[in-house]
Amino acid sequence: MSATSDPRSERVQVRRIPARGDYDQATIHAILDEALVCHVGIVDDGQPVVIPTIHVRVGDEVFLHGSKGSRLLRTLEMGGEACITVTLLDGLVLARSAFHHSMNYRSVVLLGRGRAVESREEKSRVLDALVDHVIAGRSADARMPSENEIDATTVVAFPIDEASAKIRTGPPVDEEKDMSLPIWAGVLPLGLTPGSPVAAEELSADIATPSYVTAYSRPRGDR
Amino acid sequence: MSATSDPRSERVQVRRIPARGDYDQATIHAILDEALVCHVGIVDDGQPVVIPTIHVRVGDEVFLHGSKGSRLLRTLEMGGEACITVTLLDGLVLARSAFHHSMNYRSVVLLGRGRAVESREEKSRVLDALVDHVIAGRSADARMPSENEIDATTVVAFPIDEASAKIRTGPPVDEEKDMSLPIWAGVLPLGLTPGSPVAAEELSADIATPSYVTAYSRPRGDR
Repeated sequence: MSATSDPRSERVQVRRIPARGDYDQATIHAILDEALVCHVGIVDDGQPVVIPTIHVRVGDEVFLHGSKGSRLLRTLEMGGEACITVTLLDGLVLARSAFHHSMNYRSVVLLGRGRAVESREEKSRVLDALVDHVIAGRSADARMPSENEIDATTVVAFPIDEASAKIRTGPPVDEEKDMSLPIWAGVLPLGLTPGSPVAAEELSADIATPSYVTAYSRPRGDR
Repeated sequence: MSATSDPRSERVQVRRIPARGDYDQATIHAILDEALVCHVGIVDDGQPVVIPTIHVRVGDEVFLHGSKGSRLLRTLEMGGEACITVTLLDGLVLARSAFHHSMNYRSVVLLGRGRAVESREEKSRVLDALVDHVIAGRSADARMPSENEIDATTVVAFPIDEASAKIRTGPPVDEEKDMSLPIWAGVLPLGLTPGSPVAAEELSADIATPSYVTAYSRPRGDR
């Protein structure tokens, strides 16, 4: 875990277990880059709504995209307040007491209002980056978006400004009085891992499975 | 995928790609039961805030828990509107065109207001269920919560009433005109898998690693 710095706003200060808070931009970027899915919160007529979607970080911004018809994207491009949260689950933490059970995780919470990306050039760059965020190397192979496809896609940018990371690592922490109980304690690591690729049925037999598929892994930042 | 039924409220009707919507309670329960983490959205002074946390389903309710000092739990126990979303990522869907790239996933969105669980007996039952939701069998081994620990924990119940599932399965769907492009297409399955357990350093060598740790897997509902 990298050294913590100060939060850029009180709104993203980690209040529960402050020692787990981390405001270092490199830490925040690494978590955003590893996560495949983010959860976006908006307020719709007073009701919080949380929708999972794909994101990509480029520089100091996070980009979301979607169909022009999406309620989420319409709200975001109109500049509604949003919260973008990503969570990487690293393991189950089994303490001797149920009370001190926990999980090891790395999460980022980002608050802000979006900026609609208007130019085809910027949208195109973001969509390329999005494909390579999900599976590095893919944008060089896939048929990239036509102008019509770009025009049918809404892209919204969020500054990585009001953001904080929260991280738990390491073994369980038990009460002193529980340490001698004859109960197994430790960590069960968890990770997202790929299975065997399943080629599309109609795929010509002479098209080999690319190495970015067969050797797939997520980029890992410094823990 | 099970047959869809009607949504119980328009607020949870799946509007983007309605064919992916599923309102069957068994489907919704199975997704909630497999997921280890949910993302809870609340509105805090007009700002949406999305926080990852652990949940457990018991019967027709989802329960969240946390410290009495948690802002999230305080908002929830006071009956603020919430959105609880869980997402299971099943695979990357690589189409020939970047535009038709997708993910296979199963998600649930649940809207509602919480009910603070007051009685120690109900809280205790929920905390047992929570431990076994994360790792089935653990509650029989761990030192279960004392009355003080139960009193220090806030538990909030949400009815699984206004809820919908959204599911994508299967291969990529490309445009007819792209089908003959010499580009690999298919699905790369992804799943959360356990690594090797790491026993706590102070653990007595004669305490064996339980089978619920060494043979850990998530319950899987019908896809």
